[in-house]
Amino acid sequence: MAAKEKTLNDLFLHTLKDVFYAEKQILKALPRMAKNAESEELRQAFETHREETEGQIERLEKVFEMLGKPARGVQCEAINGIIEEGKEVMEDFADSEALDAGILAAAQAVEHYEITRYGSLKTWAEELGMSDAAKLLDQNLQEEKKTDKLLTELAVARVNTKAA
Amino acid sequence: MAAKEKTLNDLFLHTLKDVFYAEKQILKALPRMAKNAESEELRQAFETHREETEGQIERLEKVFEMLGKPARGVQCEAINGIIEEGKEVMEDFADSEALDAGILAAAQAVEHYEITRYGSLKTWAEELGMSDAAKLLDQNLQEEKKTDKLLTELAVARVNTKAA
Repeated sequence: MAAKEKTLNDLFLHTLKDVFYAEKQILKALPRMAKNAESEELRQAFETHREETEGQIERLEKVFEMLGKPARGVQCEAINGIIEEGKEVMEDFADSEALDAGILAAAQAVEHYEITRYGSLKTWAEELGMSDAAKLLDQNLQEEKKTDKLLTELAVARVNTKAA
Repeated sequence: MAAKEKTLNDLFLHTLKDVFYAEKQILKALPRMAKNAESEELRQAFETHREETEGQIERLEKVFEMLGKPARGVQCEAINGIIEEGKEVMEDFADSEALDAGILAAAQAVEHYEITRYGSLKTWAEELGMSDAAKLLDQNLQEEKKTDKLLTELAVARVNTKAA
């Protein structure tokens, strides 16, 4: 059985490809989310995150380089599903009072997917003795956490504005 | 446009159905994950979480009741994708040294999906003045966070055991 010979290195590479694909899909989805957002702060947050995402993709390319592998993605059904649900919410709630709430929730689902993948990748990079790769992955992880925190703040601010 | 009349109530109900569907899928997936796990601690963690998940589904049923709506799920492509990826990892890494690492990562992706959904639902329940629903959703949120933390600890313990 070929499966018997799989190692943590294989899992690391597979998951790296998964998150590489995910980041590329997110890069495509962010302008659409920015365009649909009603609040200026939310639009800004997506534009900033789009720039960050470009930097994150570059870091992933460096990690591929460290592995001596071409930077290539693999279909990731999870991120496809998360982005698809976000699209549906934007369509179903277009022009409604709940549009930004829906977009915020969709964006946070994306962030949480990235947070969990970078968390695993960073742990495995450390285990594999790839401390430079672990550092790059941690930079991405911290940016995603910061973005998720900002989105939570915007979600709470939205509620407070409505209440005022 | 019918879309114009959609409210935060609609978004809340839609997302409640989404997470209800997700929990039911997770309830089905957990025994398979427990069965595949190599470490006894990981197997235990999944069995405990399966029992917790049953309680979480009951809490969601109560929230549906508060809304005067039947407890019904909607297809959630996000959780389908996340669970599908977990299945693939379990197949591809069967009998390999990286199996538990892969199962742990898959389980954490599930937890993060639930954490983000319960976070949004709780915020909206508060905004809608449904404080009892917010409390139930917060209980689910705290359990998912606790489970994610436990899985992180098991992932780190796995690394340390290998190093020893």
